[in-house]
Amino acid sequence: MPLMTPEQYEESLRQLNFKVYLQGELVTNPVDHAIIRPSMNSVKMTYALAIDPQYEELTTATSHITGKKVSRFTHLHQSTDDLVKKVKMQRLLGQKTAACFQRCVGMDAMNAVDSVTFEMDQKLATKYHERFINFLTRVQEEDWTVDGAMTDPKGDRSLSPSKQADPDLFVHVVERRADGIVVSGAKAHQTGALNSHWILVMPTISMSKEDADYAVSFVTPADADGIFYIYGRQSCDTRKLEGGSIDVGNSQFGGHEVLMVFDNVFIPWENVFMCGEYEFSGALVERFAGYHRQSYGGCKVGVGDVLIGAVALATEYSGANKASHVKDKLIEMIHLNETLYCCGIACSAEGYRTASGTYLIDLLLANVCKQNVTRFPYEIARLAEDLAGGLMVTMPSEKDLRHPEIGKVVEKYLRGVASVPTEHRMRVLRLIENITLGTAAVGYRTESMHGAGSPQAQRIVISRQGNLEQKKELAKAIAGIKND
Amino acid sequence: MPLMTPEQYEESLRQLNFKVYLQGELVTNPVDHAIIRPSMNSVKMTYALAIDPQYEELTTATSHITGKKVSRFTHLHQSTDDLVKKVKMQRLLGQKTAACFQRCVGMDAMNAVDSVTFEMDQKLATKYHERFINFLTRVQEEDWTVDGAMTDPKGDRSLSPSKQADPDLFVHVVERRADGIVVSGAKAHQTGALNSHWILVMPTISMSKEDADYAVSFVTPADADGIFYIYGRQSCDTRKLEGGSIDVGNSQFGGHEVLMVFDNVFIPWENVFMCGEYEFSGALVERFAGYHRQSYGGCKVGVGDVLIGAVALATEYSGANKASHVKDKLIEMIHLNETLYCCGIACSAEGYRTASGTYLIDLLLANVCKQNVTRFPYEIARLAEDLAGGLMVTMPSEKDLRHPEIGKVVEKYLRGVASVPTEHRMRVLRLIENITLGTAAVGYRTESMHGAGSPQAQRIVISRQGNLEQKKELAKAIAGIKND
Amino acid sequence: MPLMTPEQYEESLRQLNFKVYLQGELVTNPVDHAIIRPSMNSVKMTYALAIDPQYEELTTATSHITGKKVSRFTHLHQSTDDLVKKVKMQRLLGQKTAACFQRCVGMDAMNAVDSVTFEMDQKLATKYHERFINFLTRVQEEDWTVDGAMTDPKGDRSLSPSKQADPDLFVHVVERRADGIVVSGAKAHQTGALNSHWILVMPTISMSKEDADYAVSFVTPADADGIFYIYGRQSCDTRKLEGGSIDVGNSQFGGHEVLMVFDNVFIPWENVFMCGEYEFSGALVERFAGYHRQSYGGCKVGVGDVLIGAVALATEYSGANKASHVKDKLIEMIHLNETLYCCGIACSAEGYRTASGTYLIDLLLANVCKQNVTRFPYEIARLAEDLAGGLMVTMPSEKDLRHPEIGKVVEKYLRGVASVPTEHRMRVLRLIENITLGTAAVGYRTESMHGAGSPQAQRIVISRQGNLEQKKELAKAIAGIKND
Amino acid sequence: MPLMTPEQYEESLRQLNFKVYLQGELVTNPVDHAIIRPSMNSVKMTYALAIDPQYEELTTATSHITGKKVSRFTHLHQSTDDLVKKVKMQRLLGQKTAACFQRCVGMDAMNAVDSVTFEMDQKLATKYHERFINFLTRVQEEDWTVDGAMTDPKGDRSLSPSKQADPDLFVHVVERRADGIVVSGAKAHQTGALNSHWILVMPTISMSKEDADYAVSFVTPADADGIFYIYGRQSCDTRKLEGGSIDVGNSQFGGHEVLMVFDNVFIPWENVFMCGEYEFSGALVERFAGYHRQSYGGCKVGVGDVLIGAVALATEYSGANKASHVKDKLIEMIHLNETLYCCGIACSAEGYRTASGTYLIDLLLANVCKQNVTRFPYEIARLAEDLAGGLMVTMPSEKDLRHPEIGKVVEKYLRGVASVPTEHRMRVLRLIENITLGTAAVGYRTESMHGAGSPQAQRIVISRQGNLEQKKELAKAIAGIKND
Repeated sequence: MPLMTPEQYEESLRQLNFKVYLQGELVTNPVDHAIIRPSMNSVKMTYALAIDPQYEELTTATSHITGKKVSRFTHLHQSTDDLVKKVKMQRLLGQKTAACFQRCVGMDAMNAVDSVTFEMDQKLATKYHERFINFLTRVQEEDWTVDGAMTDPKGDRSLSPSKQADPDLFVHVVERRADGIVVSGAKAHQTGALNSHWILVMPTISMSKEDADYAVSFVTPADADGIFYIYGRQSCDTRKLEGGSIDVGNSQFGGHEVLMVFDNVFIPWENVFMCGEYEFSGALVERFAGYHRQSYGGCKVGVGDVLIGAVALATEYSGANKASHVKDKLIEMIHLNETLYCCGIACSAEGYRTASGTYLIDLLLANVCKQNVTRFPYEIARLAEDLAGGLMVTMPSEKDLRHPEIGKVVEKYLRGVASVPTEHRMRVLRLIENITLGTAAVGYRTESMHGAGSPQAQRIVISRQGNLEQKKELAKAIAGIKND
Repeated sequence: MPLMTPEQYEESLRQLNFKVYLQGELVTNPVDHAIIRPSMNSVKMTYALAIDPQYEELTTATSHITGKKVSRFTHLHQSTDDLVKKVKMQRLLGQKTAACFQRCVGMDAMNAVDSVTFEMDQKLATKYHERFINFLTRVQEEDWTVDGAMTDPKGDRSLSPSKQADPDLFVHVVERRADGIVVSGAKAHQTGALNSHWILVMPTISMSKEDADYAVSFVTPADADGIFYIYGRQSCDTRKLEGGSIDVGNSQFGGHEVLMVFDNVFIPWENVFMCGEYEFSGALVERFAGYHRQSYGGCKVGVGDVLIGAVALATEYSGANKASHVKDKLIEMIHLNETLYCCGIACSAEGYRTASGTYLIDLLLANVCKQNVTRFPYEIARLAEDLAGGLMVTMPSEKDLRHPEIGKVVEKYLRGVASVPTEHRMRVLRLIENITLGTAAVGYRTESMHGAGSPQAQRIVISRQGNLEQKKELAKAIAGIKND
Repeated sequence: MPLMTPEQYEESLRQLNFKVYLQGELVTNPVDHAIIRPSMNSVKMTYALAIDPQYEELTTATSHITGKKVSRFTHLHQSTDDLVKKVKMQRLLGQKTAACFQRCVGMDAMNAVDSVTFEMDQKLATKYHERFINFLTRVQEEDWTVDGAMTDPKGDRSLSPSKQADPDLFVHVVERRADGIVVSGAKAHQTGALNSHWILVMPTISMSKEDADYAVSFVTPADADGIFYIYGRQSCDTRKLEGGSIDVGNSQFGGHEVLMVFDNVFIPWENVFMCGEYEFSGALVERFAGYHRQSYGGCKVGVGDVLIGAVALATEYSGANKASHVKDKLIEMIHLNETLYCCGIACSAEGYRTASGTYLIDLLLANVCKQNVTRFPYEIARLAEDLAGGLMVTMPSEKDLRHPEIGKVVEKYLRGVASVPTEHRMRVLRLIENITLGTAAVGYRTESMHGAGSPQAQRIVISRQGNLEQKKELAKAIAGIKND
Repeated sequence: MPLMTPEQYEESLRQLNFKVYLQGELVTNPVDHAIIRPSMNSVKMTYALAIDPQYEELTTATSHITGKKVSRFTHLHQSTDDLVKKVKMQRLLGQKTAACFQRCVGMDAMNAVDSVTFEMDQKLATKYHERFINFLTRVQEEDWTVDGAMTDPKGDRSLSPSKQADPDLFVHVVERRADGIVVSGAKAHQTGALNSHWILVMPTISMSKEDADYAVSFVTPADADGIFYIYGRQSCDTRKLEGGSIDVGNSQFGGHEVLMVFDNVFIPWENVFMCGEYEFSGALVERFAGYHRQSYGGCKVGVGDVLIGAVALATEYSGANKASHVKDKLIEMIHLNETLYCCGIACSAEGYRTASGTYLIDLLLANVCKQNVTRFPYEIARLAEDLAGGLMVTMPSEKDLRHPEIGKVVEKYLRGVASVPTEHRMRVLRLIENITLGTAAVGYRTESMHGAGSPQAQRIVISRQGNLEQKKELAKAIAGIKND
């Protein structure tokens, strides 16, 4: 049966042999670490909603390989309807976790690898697509979470991979053997890596001939020999160690990013999907990025829904909710959030079939989507901070509220509308803080900015896909300018 | 055969007996008036593209009444695919005319009247829907252009219709007879009225009981007794009287707006679709506005395409096109334009079936679409003026260019890149002027702002449709706030 | 007595022998031409306010040469107080004309030429400054209006002056004689040239050695032999020929721009202030541009005041003025307008003394000022169009209002609040149209964009003047990064 | 000698008997608490720069009472030059601390209390001004830091003070005695309270007659009986307990906010400056807010300078600094930052003398200043996050860098340009994180939003001060509309 229960998922993670460093210490069981666990809970929610009949139309799909019901996260999009449902599933999960649920990156990677390997095989008579389908079949059967790993540390941005002072600043093939390859390097900003069973590695930029060793794509178990992780710090991360449930803002869910290091890791050929075919690296990057830029038109909208709801509550709790400027700012937040959703839906509805049969989003609109995601969540957050009021960042701590003596004072002076418990007000303000300044701000702000490519990367695609030549012809026709 | 040729369309207009005042004079044949004709040409283009095999998938549809091929402008949307194609047809026509092509308002009105009359009949056992379908059948057979007339002059905005000092400031029933009704009042800002065969009148706001006489909807021939028109001035309108083809910017196409006056006009009952059922007036306004707010995610994007192309040409002609800031501003223009398109597509793809079988757009997203249309074209225009340079508004006239002596001086000093004729540069700059400051600015700017409802109207719908209550529940779940 | 009356000014212009082409015709007396006259009226207002005791503190100053009271437009700034008063005078004149009053460019040019020629003489032992002071003394005595002419047609923007296909695309010295020089070329976008007694020519960019012939500055009577003008078209310019007072929006005042052509014009040495000293061309451009970028923090704010007032009236006349969103948008317009004023004041208050004794503005802040002027008037205009409503661009004409029959219909249906005459409403809407789309939009929008240099020009100065190195040191100190 | 050394200041704080709760614990010596100390260091910097000859022109002034040199923080502004220097001093201190240095609020409060008490005494024959000058004389002599306390908790925002369920939600007089008054209540968001010697309390809104007991202003020693403090949590506050110097971002400086509780505190009459004169409460609020809104045009600009410098370094360290979009975004950051500075300077330069002799800023421009401060720092922060890259929030911790084994891996993979130590890169990224998401984001973002009044408060003043009536008259004059 291809769908794991959340409990089975958690148990399966415990079986893995991760090697993780977190703030100077080696963590043996990430699932049980207070800083890491909320991110596991977010992924777990993807399993919970897949077996919830209320949501299964969005969260599951029918495998085009086996005809069985599979998690949409392991599915290859067979239609624009699949693409649209993907976005709706992501909005739903954003609403349920108010965090990054981490499983999209693998879904997007698998969809991209599918069509590119198909086209590679067609052109080069390689066997990559067959290998990939074998892998995917197991992913669907086992209902694995796969991490899509693209971003290399990159070192000096003005230099190409092979020109870097240290050759490992981009993941590359260090040895080719009969039975497989050996790779070294690292992938940075890896979302959800520790909650994944497998890692699907892709090149991070379009490679040229001299960087052919860097044009490499493969899968590997997340706990393979030679792989280790260094956990990234998030704003306010250690509040999760304090034991309470208020100051963390979101006590259940979160996201994480790690530096994933490959120290001479062996990859058998059956798990290799690109090895030196640099001329296909650009297409792989573009398609993965395209899918992932679509994703943000869903997940960030869902987090935005929670933030807007939290702000609406905060204004009710303070008694400010009737003011016309308050209502107007809430409308503006909804407007911006739904504009992002429009972009997510549009690039999906305008998707098209690739040669392998898998559907690709409209690349121009997906990049437009992501470009807006680098802007509007920041304005939504600004408006949230406006309506939340300064108390959000000057409030006493949960320990003060729980203090036998001073707690009454906190109760008394932080009360807004008399009928609402002070603790409710504190909870909702801490949630807003969490999304705008705290651990979730990493997801809602910085990831919105840089995830799936920094803003300038989208502008380059928009420039390429914007069809300026056709627009010039339209203008000439209207202006009465004859071509020579 | 339901599709007219452009020539037949023009001829059919000549048969109508319009009474039009234009700048203090009575115009007997609007089709031949130099100020009005470009707007007729824009509508004519809708006929031309309907019989062009290259575009017929977008510009025609299969009538759900007769099964015949009809113009999409006379079609009721039978699917979300129809809704999406409508937007694409509008973008196409915007590209081909760089102007308002005026026929959408009737299409949107007919689609709205269809579902609302159906629901009225269901609830009130009236016969409105049958009458409407009879009318629509003829529209499809004759391939008429129908004007949808909604906006009343409104007088004092702080007063309801029946409270106005002058009862005619909103169209209303002045007499009910056995054979029909008599109406008086006016509709303002009527786009394309003079290029229409019929006028479909709707109430402009949700009416209350005391304003029941203002809850009236009907059709009437555009040249019926008692109807006359006063033509609205546009910026630079009289350049069209000067005889050249450069200074007008767009010598072929344009739009227009008129004040349409109803002076005791008789409407037989068969043409009446609402008469006093004030409780349905709100739904009619909301649906028409929703469809028309969707429309702007198509037509304005098409005009934007022309403007972006014109600006790209202008920078090539001046030799500035290689500068990084120029390239970046063109990307920004494309990005904003495509964001509007995303909204147009999304509210269509997310449309749904109403009781009558006609598909309605997603109201929330359609209003989000229009709200963005009140902003982005202005920023696109600002960027256009940036890249066009000051010459756009300080250039000598076409007559100076044609002057036997001074023409050479204009040629010499207005030359940009040596290989490009000066006239090309002037033409493209005048086109940019036309869209940002001239006759077409009325369509690209002011209509973007106020057409289909002013910005605040969209905000009210966004507030109603934004589902803030659900968002608050999402936030409570994350923040750990229990409902009492 | 150094101050002319407005009547004397008008009479003095009549004495000049201008050669002007306007829409293909040679105009012999520009003062009396209906299209040109409003621009003359704007300059005339500078004379009227100089002799109005109510305003003389702002509009006059004490000559540092003669100690006499002179027009501030002919004055060299002797203090930061002078710089601040300049901005306030400009705001005042913007308020009184709602247009470009054209006399600033000469004032800014003279102030720039003063300090640069002083420094040239100090370094090169030339006599330019003495010549300039002689000229300025006469300007103050005669109370002349001087046009500052900087912008060349520029041809292909990717080529330097001497690399252009046509050498005349930048003004240059074609002959050096014992008694003077002969120059050819043209200056484009010349604001107020036809309302000026003298033209002060400056180079338009920093010149290199190979372009030394283009590094030329001089004064010449505006009607000198070899100079002629081609009048630029403005949006809605010919409405001024229609004879009414409503549709023009602003029936009294306006601005203009011309192409000024120099066809082998002789300049005696006493009128030459730079001739080949290319290494000083950059300073002259930078200082003139700096002063002129300051100016926009005054004049455009004054026009903004009129626009805001007009919009406030329009909402009162329609009865919409009590709506909270209307009030909020008016606040936003004021806020943006006053932000521009802040920039105008700040760069003045932070000015400093140059070697010649003349005060220069703070260059960084003046460029920041102008950069904002390329943005905020556009947003103010957008908000104006929002609050004005669509009627602004769909209204019948003045001739319709005056029509014996149809006039009553216009009266009836364009009435807003019952107590306000329809004509008042039409007048104020036409004024808003004038500033946002009509003749004055050239000043309020395009000139705000490109006057005193296009936006990118300011960004280059901001980059140079922004002192990034110091900022990096500040950051290192805080971050604990030691310099090696 | 009126100027304390930094060391004397620190020592003087140790003498105070503060009662502070911090995360559930009573802190006996705030100066030595790792979380609080950086905020003390910021105030200490105000003492350090006052005795640094390099800066004394900005940081000191001549007392108008004693003629002695005093800290500008204890000075009443005697001229617009004083007002301008205040802003420059604030920018300087922002640059030196990259944090809120907390001493402005008392300076602004004292300047406001001075002119208002003077006018109260004039009108009501009270003795408040004399008392205040006595207090101020001691402040100058002792070089005290004074906290200005305005913001009450406010409870239900829709109710006035006396209508609240709990009367203590605004500070009020609970008893009037022969020797003084007794007050209860609290002040929220108190910046720098624990680093102050005295607290100057003011009402938070304009009071009406029924709220006369809430119209109270007084000074009290910061450690008076009945006063205690609850320390507010900031994002990332506990990183200061970890012992390193990198992850904190700014290891030396910070700000803080506390909830200050008054539990039946006795105030002798000599320290009371308002007691029931509700009709003056509005003026006091408006002037204090005006001064404090000016302040933000200095201090936030200084922090902005550090942030811009840090971002410039980050792009150098990553090798991205040559890209045109990077340069352009840095220009935009500078532009926005300097626009704020323009507003700070302009409202100062346009200040005017009040009846007491103390200079007040231009209220309209000061509110415009603050309104921009609620926007531009957010956009600067957004651009900073864009250029910093995702590493800013996914970086391993300082402990990982120091780890004997894993440290080398961090060194290797976080290296950007090869010549720059990885630690430098980490330091500058953590500084950017600190200002955009961490402890300093409370100052740079939230305080920019809500300090000195939330955005809507400024809009109300802009509306009142914007002189819309005069603007309407200007428009009428241009439009040719006669007043009746």
